[in-house]
Amino acid sequence: MGTQAQKITIPNILEVGTQRIENTALYLERAGISKVIIFFGEGIKVLFGSKLIESIEKSSSVELLKSYEYDEIRLENLVDEAFSIPAETHAVIGIGGGKVLDCAKYIAFLNDIPFISIPTSTSNDAFASSGCSLYISNRRKSVHAVMPYGIIVDLDIVINSPMKFIYSGLGDIVSKITAIYDWYFEQEHGKGKVKDFAAMLAKKSANSIVRLEMPNIKENFFLKEMVDSLTMSGIAMEIAGSSAPASGSEHLISHALDKILERPELHGLQVGVATYLMSLVQNHRSKRIEKFFIQTGFFDYIETLEMKKSDFEKAITTAPSIKPNRFTTIHIEENQEIAKKLLYSNPYLNKILK
Amino acid sequence: MGTQAQKITIPNILEVGTQRIENTALYLERAGISKVIIFFGEGIKVLFGSKLIESIEKSSSVELLKSYEYDEIRLENLVDEAFSIPAETHAVIGIGGGKVLDCAKYIAFLNDIPFISIPTSTSNDAFASSGCSLYISNRRKSVHAVMPYGIIVDLDIVINSPMKFIYSGLGDIVSKITAIYDWYFEQEHGKGKVKDFAAMLAKKSANSIVRLEMPNIKENFFLKEMVDSLTMSGIAMEIAGSSAPASGSEHLISHALDKILERPELHGLQVGVATYLMSLVQNHRSKRIEKFFIQTGFFDYIETLEMKKSDFEKAITTAPSIKPNRFTTIHIEENQEIAKKLLYSNPYLNKILK
Amino acid sequence: MGTQAQKITIPNILEVGTQRIENTALYLERAGISKVIIFFGEGIKVLFGSKLIESIEKSSSVELLKSYEYDEIRLENLVDEAFSIPAETHAVIGIGGGKVLDCAKYIAFLNDIPFISIPTSTSNDAFASSGCSLYISNRRKSVHAVMPYGIIVDLDIVINSPMKFIYSGLGDIVSKITAIYDWYFEQEHGKGKVKDFAAMLAKKSANSIVRLEMPNIKENFFLKEMVDSLTMSGIAMEIAGSSAPASGSEHLISHALDKILERPELHGLQVGVATYLMSLVQNHRSKRIEKFFIQTGFFDYIETLEMKKSDFEKAITTAPSIKPNRFTTIHIEENQEIAKKLLYSNPYLNKILK
Amino acid sequence: MGTQAQKITIPNILEVGTQRIENTALYLERAGISKVIIFFGEGIKVLFGSKLIESIEKSSSVELLKSYEYDEIRLENLVDEAFSIPAETHAVIGIGGGKVLDCAKYIAFLNDIPFISIPTSTSNDAFASSGCSLYISNRRKSVHAVMPYGIIVDLDIVINSPMKFIYSGLGDIVSKITAIYDWYFEQEHGKGKVKDFAAMLAKKSANSIVRLEMPNIKENFFLKEMVDSLTMSGIAMEIAGSSAPASGSEHLISHALDKILERPELHGLQVGVATYLMSLVQNHRSKRIEKFFIQTGFFDYIETLEMKKSDFEKAITTAPSIKPNRFTTIHIEENQEIAKKLLYSNPYLNKILK
Repeated sequence: MGTQAQKITIPNILEVGTQRIENTALYLERAGISKVIIFFGEGIKVLFGSKLIESIEKSSSVELLKSYEYDEIRLENLVDEAFSIPAETHAVIGIGGGKVLDCAKYIAFLNDIPFISIPTSTSNDAFASSGCSLYISNRRKSVHAVMPYGIIVDLDIVINSPMKFIYSGLGDIVSKITAIYDWYFEQEHGKGKVKDFAAMLAKKSANSIVRLEMPNIKENFFLKEMVDSLTMSGIAMEIAGSSAPASGSEHLISHALDKILERPELHGLQVGVATYLMSLVQNHRSKRIEKFFIQTGFFDYIETLEMKKSDFEKAITTAPSIKPNRFTTIHIEENQEIAKKLLYSNPYLNKILK
Repeated sequence: MGTQAQKITIPNILEVGTQRIENTALYLERAGISKVIIFFGEGIKVLFGSKLIESIEKSSSVELLKSYEYDEIRLENLVDEAFSIPAETHAVIGIGGGKVLDCAKYIAFLNDIPFISIPTSTSNDAFASSGCSLYISNRRKSVHAVMPYGIIVDLDIVINSPMKFIYSGLGDIVSKITAIYDWYFEQEHGKGKVKDFAAMLAKKSANSIVRLEMPNIKENFFLKEMVDSLTMSGIAMEIAGSSAPASGSEHLISHALDKILERPELHGLQVGVATYLMSLVQNHRSKRIEKFFIQTGFFDYIETLEMKKSDFEKAITTAPSIKPNRFTTIHIEENQEIAKKLLYSNPYLNKILK
Repeated sequence: MGTQAQKITIPNILEVGTQRIENTALYLERAGISKVIIFFGEGIKVLFGSKLIESIEKSSSVELLKSYEYDEIRLENLVDEAFSIPAETHAVIGIGGGKVLDCAKYIAFLNDIPFISIPTSTSNDAFASSGCSLYISNRRKSVHAVMPYGIIVDLDIVINSPMKFIYSGLGDIVSKITAIYDWYFEQEHGKGKVKDFAAMLAKKSANSIVRLEMPNIKENFFLKEMVDSLTMSGIAMEIAGSSAPASGSEHLISHALDKILERPELHGLQVGVATYLMSLVQNHRSKRIEKFFIQTGFFDYIETLEMKKSDFEKAITTAPSIKPNRFTTIHIEENQEIAKKLLYSNPYLNKILK
Repeated sequence: MGTQAQKITIPNILEVGTQRIENTALYLERAGISKVIIFFGEGIKVLFGSKLIESIEKSSSVELLKSYEYDEIRLENLVDEAFSIPAETHAVIGIGGGKVLDCAKYIAFLNDIPFISIPTSTSNDAFASSGCSLYISNRRKSVHAVMPYGIIVDLDIVINSPMKFIYSGLGDIVSKITAIYDWYFEQEHGKGKVKDFAAMLAKKSANSIVRLEMPNIKENFFLKEMVDSLTMSGIAMEIAGSSAPASGSEHLISHALDKILERPELHGLQVGVATYLMSLVQNHRSKRIEKFFIQTGFFDYIETLEMKKSDFEKAITTAPSIKPNRFTTIHIEENQEIAKKLLYSNPYLNKILK
């Protein structure tokens, strides 16, 4: 019947706070998970390995079968590792940055076992989404994997991660504002249908952040809000069955930059700038975004990076071709021209970009 | 296995905006629903009946089998009606206030068919939750029914509903702040386990509202945010499998008032006052709530009602016995004393209550 | 998306064998159920109460909150009881015949908690289905309730139940053969769509029984097969979302007899006779059914009951009006005539009916 | 909560009968599937390609994006193809033997889109299961993929497939008898827990076949029963979350033969012989199996293959090491000795094996 209510999958473990990593075994116990393997990202084992491993070793019911320092995201290598893990593995833990999380997530997916996501920085919403970015035949590709069964974010770690990761996370959250606008824009033009609940979640995830009166990005309170919002954004995509609630024209510009530049900046940093730009084009809540980026120091931070207007210009031209099946504001040629001009005429963009 | 991710049910139709009621048939069509019955609340058919019925009559695929002006919530009468609806009914629409929505929701539940919720005022989150408030053997009781399959909120109607309904909705949304505090409070005292994702949703639902810089409660923009938040609150309860994410000590005080008073005020109005009171007791975000209630005119509105301090005092004493199995801040005797004193010592409470 | 695979609900506890009742607490423990109430059918507590209660009392993790000797199926009384059970009840156990199982099942449904079904006789598939037969406004009605969370069938009890119950169960199982024929018949005539997997399950449930070479109905081996088949039949209806895979023209004749007669025979006995009759009308596997009913003694048993041909004649005429929305073989007038004549011309029917 | 009923996934399209392939587009339409790709197994396009393609070309709502003659099951090649299919593909159809079904199933799995299984021979239950047999780093491995969204079996094709495929299917179905015995054997020895509903399905799937009085393996009636039973077996594994309901000691012996022999026989043929052997060891229903294998000509057919007793002897020794975590009857050393002797002492085995 077409009238069954939609069922969505949500993480069973969701722990965001201080002193989380040392309690990992406790969360696994409660969830009935007993035999695990751990994938550590580069340099992560030295930093947080002992805390995590000790937590498990002290547990009487959770057993560490094997740990890897391995964050391969080339699919051809990944599959070999995936099918060589211990046969009795009950869950795969990934700890570190985006690469190792994608690696561990895909290995869990191929083996049809739960994935536990422990990001050490929260520069985008990948730690809470079912997607994966892999190299397939030497080309980077976004592929479907599986929603994390557990998400554990230790704010003691996140707060000490480099500022660029935190600013990147901020940029990724704020981008929901222009992404949602583009999704409804598409629907109004008869292309695709917005899933309202997904749109609502994504919108709330951004609004609860940008409406903070005095955002202090180095406080646990703020970071928890940000991590919660990134998690909601991941779940919004799960509900939508696509990235549309979290990714519109601003993401296309960032993806285009990734193609154009030899050394692109962090995803969320590029996305943040493109979000401000597109909010001006959309004439939609740009003042709110502007104020937020000023208050949090996002604009100041971007200025130190020396990103180039000319690269953004090229990216604007390329953006629509990244997802030819979509129809966002940047798919309108006129809007591309407006966007290019804004790079110079808008005082903030003119200042923070070289 | 204990390691299956949790599946939750979400509404398939979720339409919040202007000009929604006249498009009801369109939403039903898209969802594949063809044969419906409508329950109108008291006085509702005169006001909005023609718009809704015309929408369906114009549709080639949706058929109105029967319409009722009936909002009975005494279970003994309700069941007879429930089992007399046309055999081929595909979905039950309820339109109006809390009573008719509860009535139609329960009839849909008993027949295992979808329920479409069309609230004409949004004074609390019941229009978006699976619960039902019925009279059973002459006592009001909250019982389990079913999550709405569709939620349609027409802001053109809501904006014209009496102010008391809007203020009541506000009070109900803000109450998530103290409710979530109480849920974690309970967990810290070893009673029950917080479901983190549910808590997160409920928190975001309140934060995206109370952090608005200039909340204008008579604007569509604001009302849409409020309705979305009430919806998220309803879904948070669904995920939690209990009312805990949406209802703590502040709700117990309101429930106690319902028992004590012959003519209690609207649920959300009582809850709002109790929320401010309990945020002071919890020493948790009371300044934020205070500011929000001042800016929106909530406090001013409450003052016109002439609610009595003495009634609140009694309610504080009674509150813990309403749900003896829970363990909120008001279950601590010392906190009851603090709360009672605050009714007089806090300048706002002292002013708005008689 | 229309392309999500269908999810179906199956019982988590399914225990069919000897010495099951004394191990009930063990099954509940494994499923994580702790606080239960029990509804005993008339006369059941004396017979099996101590075994069941002792099992629970010996358990350290399962607690019996309350037990009832109550098998009310008048809805108006049932609802009062339903909403008076202890607030912390985790699951409802029903033990006995059809009445108490329907009563306990509906109470579990109204409270949204698991139902544990312990039939002491297995005269039809109701113990394993989500349906319920209740008196509503003094008329018997089949209503939707909930699939049992657990099914526990103790063959030591079933084997000692009166023969009529076993023969009734047999009749109900064999009826899948004509029911499935009618379902496809309906589809071929453009009315409704067969759900193939449901049809397959129902068919297998009958075939694995009727193809037994030497069916001995007083052996545990046979009874286990029969109980398993009745369970599969219950689940087939759940998958179909209707009773169609388990109930066709033969059931309509039995329902008609229930209306006509002051003291109808057991459901499955009437259904069994009607199944043989309709298999002759359908010209579909009647030889197989004939042989099975001879070998098992079903025909001989029916002969002792002195059911009347004239009642069957009336029932054949009434049958189509019981479910006017369906289109089974008996809905064709010509077939009604054929059926009536067969009551006299078929040697077996002529002999077993008076 | 531990008390949610289990949800299982079942195929939405299940079409088993004559003239099915030419109606494929109709089944896809009904399910709302519009854009498909087809994978043809070796030699299949010549035989059945035009019928299938014409069905789709005639449809106004289903579109064939691309077709492949490709049945690669080496994972390293498969993944490249998997991520090069047209971006708008809605479903993957595989048609042919085991290889192409595994190939297409895995490609559908990696892309998270529905898989439509159209087996042209039914030599085992793989066409209806979520498992896949792939070459990974040059070793054959059983991996998890996805339950088919649709299963379409055209008996006009199956009936004309070589006899060896039909006998192989028979062997695979009968093996449920010893497999279920082993599963309960394991549970009795404290290793693992039988999922009763899965066991019941698997048992019924075999019983409805072996209890046929006059099995005629070249009749559509019989073939439909067999295909239905293989489908139920596939679903039983899905419910169990493991192959246990469908695979016990008899499968281990066959897997061992695959390792030992350069040119092993078809899976189901080896399994059938091992099933008879193990039923003798288990002293469980061997007479029934014997009779069935005589009546259907299975034993006679096996005799023509000249399989060797000495190979079976070796396989018996190796069998337990294939799945060291399980504990079937063949894991008991004494039983291995009994099994080896039976190869010579049992008159049927002695005759059909060289």
